Amino acid sequence: MNKHSIIHRPTDNYAYACANGSVNIMIQTQKGDCESIKLIHGDPYDWSNKEWKNVKTPMRKTGTDQFYDYWHVVIKPPYRRLRYGFELNDGRKSIYFGEGGFSDEKPKVTDFYFAIPFVHASDAFQPPSWVKDTVWYQIFPERFANGNLENDPKGTLKWGSREPKPDNFFGGDLQGVIDHISYLKELGITGIYFTPIFKAYSNHKYDTIDYLEIDPQFGDKETLKQLVKVCHDNGIKVMLDAVFNHSGFYFPQFQDVVEKGQASEYKDWFHIHEFPLSFEPKPNYDTFAFTPYMPKLNTQNEEVRNYLLNVGRYWVEEFDIDGWRLDVANEVDHEFWRDFHRVVKGIKPDLYILGEIWHDAMPWLRGDQFDAVMNYPFTRNILDLFAKETIDCQHFVENMTAVIHKYPSPVNANAFNLVGSHDTPRVLNECAGDKRKVRQILTFLLTFIGTPCIYYGDEIGMDGGGDPGCRKCMIWDETEQDRQLFEHVQKLIALRKEQPLLANEGTLSFLPVKSNSNCFAFMKEKEDKKILVVFNLSKQAESFQFPALFNRQTPIDLWTGNKLHDKQIQLEAKGFSILEFSN
Amino acid sequence: MNKHSIIHRPTDNYAYACANGSVNIMIQTQKGDCESIKLIHGDPYDWSNKEWKNVKTPMRKTGTDQFYDYWHVVIKPPYRRLRYGFELNDGRKSIYFGEGGFSDEKPKVTDFYFAIPFVHASDAFQPPSWVKDTVWYQIFPERFANGNLENDPKGTLKWGSREPKPDNFFGGDLQGVIDHISYLKELGITGIYFTPIFKAYSNHKYDTIDYLEIDPQFGDKETLKQLVKVCHDNGIKVMLDAVFNHSGFYFPQFQDVVEKGQASEYKDWFHIHEFPLSFEPKPNYDTFAFTPYMPKLNTQNEEVRNYLLNVGRYWVEEFDIDGWRLDVANEVDHEFWRDFHRVVKGIKPDLYILGEIWHDAMPWLRGDQFDAVMNYPFTRNILDLFAKETIDCQHFVENMTAVIHKYPSPVNANAFNLVGSHDTPRVLNECAGDKRKVRQILTFLLTFIGTPCIYYGDEIGMDGGGDPGCRKCMIWDETEQDRQLFEHVQKLIALRKEQPLLANEGTLSFLPVKSNSNCFAFMKEKEDKKILVVFNLSKQAESFQFPALFNRQTPIDLWTGNKLHDKQIQLEAKGFSILEFSN
Repeated sequence: MNKHSIIHRPTDNYAYACANGSVNIMIQTQKGDCESIKLIHGDPYDWSNKEWKNVKTPMRKTGTDQFYDYWHVVIKPPYRRLRYGFELNDGRKSIYFGEGGFSDEKPKVTDFYFAIPFVHASDAFQPPSWVKDTVWYQIFPERFANGNLENDPKGTLKWGSREPKPDNFFGGDLQGVIDHISYLKELGITGIYFTPIFKAYSNHKYDTIDYLEIDPQFGDKETLKQLVKVCHDNGIKVMLDAVFNHSGFYFPQFQDVVEKGQASEYKDWFHIHEFPLSFEPKPNYDTFAFTPYMPKLNTQNEEVRNYLLNVGRYWVEEFDIDGWRLDVANEVDHEFWRDFHRVVKGIKPDLYILGEIWHDAMPWLRGDQFDAVMNYPFTRNILDLFAKETIDCQHFVENMTAVIHKYPSPVNANAFNLVGSHDTPRVLNECAGDKRKVRQILTFLLTFIGTPCIYYGDEIGMDGGGDPGCRKCMIWDETEQDRQLFEHVQKLIALRKEQPLLANEGTLSFLPVKSNSNCFAFMKEKEDKKILVVFNLSKQAESFQFPALFNRQTPIDLWTGNKLHDKQIQLEAKGFSILEFSN
Repeated sequence: MNKHSIIHRPTDNYAYACANGSVNIMIQTQKGDCESIKLIHGDPYDWSNKEWKNVKTPMRKTGTDQFYDYWHVVIKPPYRRLRYGFELNDGRKSIYFGEGGFSDEKPKVTDFYFAIPFVHASDAFQPPSWVKDTVWYQIFPERFANGNLENDPKGTLKWGSREPKPDNFFGGDLQGVIDHISYLKELGITGIYFTPIFKAYSNHKYDTIDYLEIDPQFGDKETLKQLVKVCHDNGIKVMLDAVFNHSGFYFPQFQDVVEKGQASEYKDWFHIHEFPLSFEPKPNYDTFAFTPYMPKLNTQNEEVRNYLLNVGRYWVEEFDIDGWRLDVANEVDHEFWRDFHRVVKGIKPDLYILGEIWHDAMPWLRGDQFDAVMNYPFTRNILDLFAKETIDCQHFVENMTAVIHKYPSPVNANAFNLVGSHDTPRVLNECAGDKRKVRQILTFLLTFIGTPCIYYGDEIGMDGGGDPGCRKCMIWDETEQDRQLFEHVQKLIALRKEQPLLANEGTLSFLPVKSNSNCFAFMKEKEDKKILVVFNLSKQAESFQFPALFNRQTPIDLWTGNKLHDKQIQLEAKGFSILEFSN
């Protein structure tokens, strides 16, 4: 057994308490090294006759990636206190691993063991319960629908008449969303993520001028109130986008600094290196990237904190929104996000907080800051397999296993999964126009764990490259929509609602996948019921053999409704299948 | 190179930002696997001609334990943003490691690399600057000195006339400390940690009755004010002990529940499983361990939180104390400690917060909760080597290297290091009376990194087994004190103040130690100056050869003041030496 590769520390994805009082323990060991692992555990104060009382519980192998096997167990300590260690067996002998290192004999002193000193519900990662069942839809308001011609900005172009550019406008607005609520309802989504709607200069509105006003080209506060009501009446949650890392250049407080320099009362609202301000070649103040028109806000300044916290509070309190998506969230300080969490959850305990973080986000997902982050590692891995074909099935399953085991399971169940956004090329373009690939990707997105988000128009086969190409006007002429794809997505959403195992119920595992295999499958199971989702990556039809564990169960094809009588299924080229096995 | 054993994640001890804007990066690799490691790093937005601009900085090997080599580097990113990865070289070829895994070629996309998205001073771990230079002295007030006979409790025994018992009293009080301030000043300590002084039932006062009153047997609020003033006038900081995990049985709020049961307005102040209360065989309410007379406080109840936060505030605001030591801190929720941190640092920004945690305490040391924890892993390791002789020098150096690398360096510099307390046998007993061992241990304690704490009486050779034996009355008759030991400690403290390298300046490393070696040494260095502290664990005198790196430097023996002319030093049996090398 390679002791150098046995990894555990009682924090983060390795050990975490849940709100119900249970504790989740994970350990990783070198791939193939261990045959079985048992958790040794007990209450640290439970001694009798000078012996510490403890029991052993077997751990379950939940995945294997390129380097490691991952093992899990859930324990509910009766007195909410836990000391624990691992008995690792390689098939020949056992060794013991705890905070004190390794031992050939089972140590008797509690000092040797790891500690979860007390399980507190208040320390658990607890996203709102509605989140994990939500199917999101992302709307870029300037390009979804023009419901009110009167608020169109000067120079508005005819809807869809031109390619999108960084500086052109087509008149999309909030009324347009209200007008098409039945479309969204028909599709089946249950939450909308709006990119920013506050007063700003650009068409994307990430350069805020006034955090407390709706951009007049999108409508007014009355329109937003109506929109939230219409959404809520239709079982749809509303999430707005807050840009707290930086303001826009025309934010009055920044303009004051531009004008008055050192004499401005707002000079400490930003990070100015020297006066007077200069903008080239690099600005002499902190910005988003090196973009002079997005000056970074100083969230360590108390006035700024209070201002932004008030923004967070205002739209929740006055407009009853359900979530905040936080732009460039990783570049704002943790202390600010802790305050933000406290303030907005104080008003609406089931408010959802989603951070934009593209990289490993563990430090933001410890329960005190965000409920989820935008899961781009998921995106990348999916596009690499299905769209770009740069990795094979085995590599994909290993990557996905590694990504999942980097986070606690409640984090995975609430992860904001996406396959494209206003910041990336559309999924159809990533697939070079191959609709079979798009169908596979959307099928994976809508049957896997996490909360899926559909980028407006992807469901009707819209195309577009990277920003600004991916920001085309929504196509409303049904004859130009890919209705087949629409129905595919609609059916997937309906199935996900019908079968909780397709969302975040049960336990996920990948079936073992051989190298050079063209097919892979993941399984969700709860009690006697299993659902298997299989994909064929090949350009030919392939047959997929069910593993032995299904032998005594008769599968139903959930996509067609047919009962199957074979021990295998035939998959079309670039096809998929969703199968239910139960006793 | 064993890829399974390459460990890094951009959080905790592996990557942390400091208040000065620098970022500390650590990686661990299988012992002996890598010849050199370079950090590849750059600003994520700094591109030119579609190429990401980055540079390489060599990492320094800072230690080796049984399994791993540890490597460090400090980077100051010019725009406070950092993407980074590792170039690992085994002497033949290099591989690249980042968030995206491993690669044989240096990846060009920033996605592959780890991220420290922005360095915020507010997120840095920042203990008060005075802490790392403090030499603590722990006082158990009932047993230090009786300065006022009038406040002695009924049945007070003659000072030192009996063995300490769980329920006897000797009349020690705050006036006693005031009376002996010159003794402490003479010894040289600069901070006192008082075990609890608030109104309580027992002699140890960990069973609080009133958190807002001084126990009458110790004095009154006026006495505490005087004590703090006298201490401050003598350059001594004052730390009090707060027991927020549980109250005492006679805490009026708990008594109210005992009397009124479910009708008590305080019933939610505790964790009561059912009414009426019962006490045997196990109490039917949460307690410290299973001790019925220490009912656990419900820190998730807002009234309790406010009550305890007010206690935290009161003694800082009204009495100007300098630190809070928090009893059983690991069993209270993180959310409470974050509030506590905010409240008490809001009043006195340089207040010190010390948690009682005996195990791995990383989750409490991320900057938002504690400044330090009681470093018992340090204690154990020292006693195992010097006192109990259950491990050898090599094992000791490996353990200490592992412990140090589990935490960021500022955490180590501020760790509360102790070799005994009111909860453990005295160091002299651990050494079975061998004063040479005691001198070695105190020498290590006072020359190593961290902040040392001396348990009252250890400096004059007092003895005593585990609680209550370690709680004997302080010996004030000089003829019964070990004055030689006192002078030893006094000299060590003076030397530590004279030579900042003996405290927390410079960089620590252990010299390589061979298996079966009887000697070991650690080195602190800053610029051209090095201090070497050497210990001989053998029962015979041994000579210790200086390694080649010292060859051109002439050592001075800081203990004797002598210049040395040899390339080695002769160490007595169970001896030590403190040597300065400079150009």
